[in-house]
Amino acid sequence: MAKKKEISLEKSDASLTKEDIIVKEKLTSLGKQLIKEIEAGQSPYFETVVRGRSNVLHGEEGYLYLGDKKEKRVFLNVAQAKKFMQTVAVAAKCKKFKEENLHTSIRGLFYQLKFTLGEDLDEELFEEQSESNELVEDLEVALNLKREDLNLSTDRKGVVAGNLVIRDKFGGEETEIDCTKQGRSGWMIPSDVDNGMEFIDVDVDYVLVIEKDALWQRLNEDKFWKKENCLIITPKGQASRGCRRLIRKLADMKLPIYCFMDCDAWGWYIYWTIKTGSMNLAYLGRNIATPEAKFIGVTMSDIERYDFLKKLTINAKEVDLKRAEELLSYPWISRHQDWVKELKIVLDTKKKIEQDALQGPRLTFVGEYVREKVENKQFLY
Amino acid sequence: MAKKKEISLEKSDASLTKEDIIVKEKLTSLGKQLIKEIEAGQSPYFETVVRGRSNVLHGEEGYLYLGDKKEKRVFLNVAQAKKFMQTVAVAAKCKKFKEENLHTSIRGLFYQLKFTLGEDLDEELFEEQSESNELVEDLEVALNLKREDLNLSTDRKGVVAGNLVIRDKFGGEETEIDCTKQGRSGWMIPSDVDNGMEFIDVDVDYVLVIEKDALWQRLNEDKFWKKENCLIITPKGQASRGCRRLIRKLADMKLPIYCFMDCDAWGWYIYWTIKTGSMNLAYLGRNIATPEAKFIGVTMSDIERYDFLKKLTINAKEVDLKRAEELLSYPWISRHQDWVKELKIVLDTKKKIEQDALQGPRLTFVGEYVREKVENKQFLY
Repeated sequence: MAKKKEISLEKSDASLTKEDIIVKEKLTSLGKQLIKEIEAGQSPYFETVVRGRSNVLHGEEGYLYLGDKKEKRVFLNVAQAKKFMQTVAVAAKCKKFKEENLHTSIRGLFYQLKFTLGEDLDEELFEEQSESNELVEDLEVALNLKREDLNLSTDRKGVVAGNLVIRDKFGGEETEIDCTKQGRSGWMIPSDVDNGMEFIDVDVDYVLVIEKDALWQRLNEDKFWKKENCLIITPKGQASRGCRRLIRKLADMKLPIYCFMDCDAWGWYIYWTIKTGSMNLAYLGRNIATPEAKFIGVTMSDIERYDFLKKLTINAKEVDLKRAEELLSYPWISRHQDWVKELKIVLDTKKKIEQDALQGPRLTFVGEYVREKVENKQFLY
Repeated sequence: MAKKKEISLEKSDASLTKEDIIVKEKLTSLGKQLIKEIEAGQSPYFETVVRGRSNVLHGEEGYLYLGDKKEKRVFLNVAQAKKFMQTVAVAAKCKKFKEENLHTSIRGLFYQLKFTLGEDLDEELFEEQSESNELVEDLEVALNLKREDLNLSTDRKGVVAGNLVIRDKFGGEETEIDCTKQGRSGWMIPSDVDNGMEFIDVDVDYVLVIEKDALWQRLNEDKFWKKENCLIITPKGQASRGCRRLIRKLADMKLPIYCFMDCDAWGWYIYWTIKTGSMNLAYLGRNIATPEAKFIGVTMSDIERYDFLKKLTINAKEVDLKRAEELLSYPWISRHQDWVKELKIVLDTKKKIEQDALQGPRLTFVGEYVREKVENKQFLY
């Protein structure tokens, strides 16, 4: 413990980026607008978009987004005054985080609010985190920003390997990460893949998204990404915000996105969430959806091509059958005959197949399967 | 898709390591012993240790381990014949994986068994994975090996940053990973931190284990590991096998291990699992436990030192109170007066504190808190 160093309590000296300044200005002008209203003797208000299911739409572009229904928070309204004040408090904290150039989670935000407001106002406004979460969503929508842009970090999950080089500016330092040199581990997908991140080299033919980490590890060991010149990504189950955003960005680079999932309720759900986005994040629209994504399997129809799979099916559970029926009821799914066929086989046979089953004949078959599917363009849309 | 390459189906050319050869020999001699018994006209058998709670002990050394109760699987016994055959099948598959120099998960093993046995024996021995899981544990105990040594990968979770350089030999390649150069992401802790992994440089004063990833991200942004010359590890909640094994290995290098957790049921559980191991992995004993670990907080007694924490406590839930009572009943906890005091405060006040609360006054306070605790050696044991 001899070589003790001082922890600097001052804000990071790394100067704010252009993007940071835009965010700060958006927050500042929100505040200025409120002051103007107060000075003009009006009740200040704050407008946001309704985020309930009734306002979620699915359009021709293939992703979920919010409709036009708006909601107003008015200060001089007994029912809304508290929420209004909270929203302003959240915005003020986020502006402070931007100025400090520091990040925290919404749990950290919650405690900052609890600390400050508890002291200044002698009232515990933020008993439960669910309240601050909702207010953050309000701000995201009203300012047309993601919470990551407001220096709020989110749960992160998932890893990447392949020919991708990233420049990561974070905590006042800059590092270059080469995703071909991450060994058995892979590069951990961060909360924010936009601010302070630059993809300085992406030289691959396609992106393979693999539901399960175990299968990712299998393909990583086979150096599949090197042999096939692709990126392999696993969201490790349901994709995090960061992972979904990463996939969107890779698709924006015109890279094909192929999803390799279980043929069951979870696998389909994870795929469709990546492709169309999800109900509760519909307010982020295309920023977090990748309608270009294609499903390479596993499918029940694979049994026609790979006879051995027949004996490696397992019994579908109630949740799988219910989900299959639900998916058939969505117009953006039922118009694809391949999907209808797939889901009907599950409902008829009451069987499902896991991607792990491809290891039955030999461990390396997983890679052979993916390669064949990609070569023959055997996808579901 | 022009630059297509052939996927090699042959086994990896990377030669087996000395450790791999020892494992293969253990598996081979198990097989030879069985053959010898059969040739001698005896019923072959297989011995393992009882893994139920009745055989789990906690000794002076401070970790959970198995007692002496043994169990025999005899082939010529109607009730045991099936299980016996399965155990041999699992051992044979693991030997094959070692020879191929390839890894899979126990789900992959399950499907390999289902594929092979279904064909050769026309009988579905492995309907459910729970069966193959139990058999893998049998083998681990009988051969005195971890499943990771048998080329079986496990769920992985958790990240590391700090002055640690690793040489990772995997999939026939070798990479060097510098945990000071992983940016916002950190180095993802793999399933296996033993085989093919070498810690070529570890130059830190201590190891800080942080329950929540959000707090890890906070300290990583502050470059806490650089300023304090420590490693920061987050298990992201309950520690994976790989993470627990990594902590054990770092403690073997005489590095102090400090655990920074929530003051609640989960935080205590995660700490005690790292320290003493857990009931269901008691068969791995000291290999996966770190009795040297110390608890730096958050504690209820912190309120005496940091007044602001009083207003950032939250209500304890039923599970927290129940857990506190349970912990007080363990002799290896109740003999530490500091722990008794802590748990009693929770039971009396029905309050708890999360580590996130330390961000209340300012985001950088988290690091100040940890530094002060470490400097003043304010630990619970």
